Amino acid sequence: MASNADLSFFFKPESVAIIGASEASGKISGIIMDSLASSGFQGRIYPVNPKYSSVKGYECYPSIGAIGEGIDVAIVALPAGAVVAALEEAAAHVAGAIVIGGGFSEAGEAGKALEHELKSLAAKTGMRIIGPNCMGIYDTASRLDTFFIPPERIKRPGPGGLSVVSQSGSFAVTAMDELASESTGVARVISYGNSSDVNESELLEFLADDEHTSAVAMYLEAVEDGQRFIKAAARCASKKPVMAIKAGRGGAGQRAALSHTASIAGRYEIYRAAFKKAGVIELEGYEEFIAACKVSGARRARPLGGKRVMIITDGGGVGVALADECAKHGLEVVPLKKEVEDGLRSMLPPYFAVGNPLDLTGSVTDEWFASSLEKTMAGDDYDAVIIAALWGPPGLTDGLAMGIAARADEFGKPVIICSPGGEYTRDKSRLFTGAGFPVFSTPESAVAAASILAKNAMLREERVRKSSRKEARNG
Amino acid sequence: MASNADLSFFFKPESVAIIGASEASGKISGIIMDSLASSGFQGRIYPVNPKYSSVKGYECYPSIGAIGEGIDVAIVALPAGAVVAALEEAAAHVAGAIVIGGGFSEAGEAGKALEHELKSLAAKTGMRIIGPNCMGIYDTASRLDTFFIPPERIKRPGPGGLSVVSQSGSFAVTAMDELASESTGVARVISYGNSSDVNESELLEFLADDEHTSAVAMYLEAVEDGQRFIKAAARCASKKPVMAIKAGRGGAGQRAALSHTASIAGRYEIYRAAFKKAGVIELEGYEEFIAACKVSGARRARPLGGKRVMIITDGGGVGVALADECAKHGLEVVPLKKEVEDGLRSMLPPYFAVGNPLDLTGSVTDEWFASSLEKTMAGDDYDAVIIAALWGPPGLTDGLAMGIAARADEFGKPVIICSPGGEYTRDKSRLFTGAGFPVFSTPESAVAAASILAKNAMLREERVRKSSRKEARNG
Repeated sequence: MASNADLSFFFKPESVAIIGASEASGKISGIIMDSLASSGFQGRIYPVNPKYSSVKGYECYPSIGAIGEGIDVAIVALPAGAVVAALEEAAAHVAGAIVIGGGFSEAGEAGKALEHELKSLAAKTGMRIIGPNCMGIYDTASRLDTFFIPPERIKRPGPGGLSVVSQSGSFAVTAMDELASESTGVARVISYGNSSDVNESELLEFLADDEHTSAVAMYLEAVEDGQRFIKAAARCASKKPVMAIKAGRGGAGQRAALSHTASIAGRYEIYRAAFKKAGVIELEGYEEFIAACKVSGARRARPLGGKRVMIITDGGGVGVALADECAKHGLEVVPLKKEVEDGLRSMLPPYFAVGNPLDLTGSVTDEWFASSLEKTMAGDDYDAVIIAALWGPPGLTDGLAMGIAARADEFGKPVIICSPGGEYTRDKSRLFTGAGFPVFSTPESAVAAASILAKNAMLREERVRKSSRKEARNG
Repeated sequence: MASNADLSFFFKPESVAIIGASEASGKISGIIMDSLASSGFQGRIYPVNPKYSSVKGYECYPSIGAIGEGIDVAIVALPAGAVVAALEEAAAHVAGAIVIGGGFSEAGEAGKALEHELKSLAAKTGMRIIGPNCMGIYDTASRLDTFFIPPERIKRPGPGGLSVVSQSGSFAVTAMDELASESTGVARVISYGNSSDVNESELLEFLADDEHTSAVAMYLEAVEDGQRFIKAAARCASKKPVMAIKAGRGGAGQRAALSHTASIAGRYEIYRAAFKKAGVIELEGYEEFIAACKVSGARRARPLGGKRVMIITDGGGVGVALADECAKHGLEVVPLKKEVEDGLRSMLPPYFAVGNPLDLTGSVTDEWFASSLEKTMAGDDYDAVIIAALWGPPGLTDGLAMGIAARADEFGKPVIICSPGGEYTRDKSRLFTGAGFPVFSTPESAVAAASILAKNAMLREERVRKSSRKEARNG
């Protein structure tokens, strides 16, 4: 069989086999079969296990060969020691395998040897392997869902344009869960674990051309082939934002990455340089990773044109904190133009301090927020607005989010919501996430999100400049 | 009347008057009277308003003088223009006033003149004034609650050892709400706004000797008398941790502080130097402010002895992120001692990678978490432990938090919970907050909390060294 250089079959499988399927409840294979059913996967599902004639109501086959058709994706839910033999048998019938279990190169010498055998098998047969030691694929386009955690514990996001590529399963899972809880969609989520065969570069090559994907967020512990990564990332980044966190930066983190996905995490500085060269936006940690996902994946996600930020709030202190954070990130909280200031003054009580940040105080109403948004964003004075809504003031109602949404539609720039607080606030935040806004519970994360958009804007401009210089040279 | 240099009467009032009390629903005075009733305030409550004979079931007086007894605290809920006249009349009968409303020096020249009159009145009569432009006091010891936001919107924390001093009302309110939603208690919360009379230094002087207060978190925009602040902060910090955020650091933030509480925010570097001199731990922003509050105020708050951190998780990637954050903050994720590693190996499957961070993987159980905690913390190898619990794995149950609590009691060091995720996770996090642990939803905030404890430990050591050097010199 020729090598499947194009990974797209993983993302539109017509047939899926679950090797090691079992009737026992709570088993990985059982959870995956339930997930496939509840995610609405439309392809054919084949449990494989010589011990059963049916599993979860599906006919169960003693071997992959017995199914009698070529299989796009085989999900392997077997203990480490049984994986290689099973895949040797399967290789003739399977385009790609997802090996879920651990116990490979992250787990000492015996595991390393097993993983080496897997790698050789992929090279020899052309069958592609994602994993081992991974969660596999969650995909809202193909509806494949190999994440073996029940949806009542980890919610699945709906469809969206963001794709997540993560070496860490727990990072991918936690991000999915946070995004789903905030009504943010995804296209493809790929947890690829030890990357014995399929690696981050190939996944980027696929996502670059994937029409379902409009932005990519990555969690990397290590990259094997730096040159290939830079090339793939640069090509993808020329088409859509690529944002990445490099985990395992040194010391204990580096050691942890080694025992986690067997990654030689390498020198952090080299990764930073590679990201820069490829036009990949570096994310500083978990919070920026989630901020990047939310601000790119929200239904009302908008690209940002520059660095000028308007801040509208009903909590003065939170406004000050936002302005301080903006300064830290190099965002400009530009003062209001005289005519805009006058327009706001005509709406607000005479003794109000009117500026940017604009503090609407505890006297705020839904309409003040919406009108302030309209008045400040009407011209082209700002590239984005951060609305810090504290829910204490009695003048705020459930209509606030839709009021803001209606005005936001008029100017088509990013609107980022910052809403810190306790239970009442968290409950009301759903109104904003439901309306498609990216919502953050701290000034830091809201500004980090704006800053990520601004970095994207700068990279876009740089590319335009470069390509027009090139044209000028060639013209 | 002599000046009330000692502010303690604000924190044990036997009688409270509400000047400008009203029957109209949704009015500030009404909310405050409801709050006093629901908070269990035991003192006498006197509404004052010539228009009514009773308000909310209390007898209403036409003037303060008509009450016929000295009043400890008068809460002034009047428009800015009416405040000075009301307080001139009240001064002979009132020890201290809390002026809630805005419209003073944060609001132009006319407001500045009004505030100047307030200041003069305080100086002339000895009546002390908190505010204007503030929320006043929320106090779990005296049960005073002048925060004029209904408890269904902003929850009130129960009793605890943390006191919060904030120039910003919204910061104080939001912090209270977050703390209450996470079962973290407070002693006194003071929002002092424009600080026309009572300022942060006097509040620190009071809190230094306050037996209800075991730690102080501050939000400052500006300090008027730097020398007095350093002296007061140093004295307080010698008795209990003092942590502060300096807001309005420059540019837009500084401008915003000016229009917010009329603060000339001053050069940030000067504040940093003052904090350092006084032994005040600087907090970097809202997230660190909340982290400091949670880690000092949680029922299971424990002081930390050093910088050595153990990380136990069931999510490898989150463990790596925690280790990276620890490195950033100068915390040491020290490798396991051989005998501890052996002890863990005897409990875990043979192919497990055992280290620090310790990744218990998706096979985790409650007991693995609890036993790992016991085995790693039994010696004196670590000063604190961060437990990053991801709720995906089916082996975790509602017993996890109590299992960890039982073992945590054995070694009496800080246990910090990091539990990122969506709705299921947020729900389960209550088990941890209910058990008294400080709980954080991101690796960044969990490590920030540990780092704040470590800074406290360093300051304590430094003080001990200094005082023993002093003794040696004198001895």
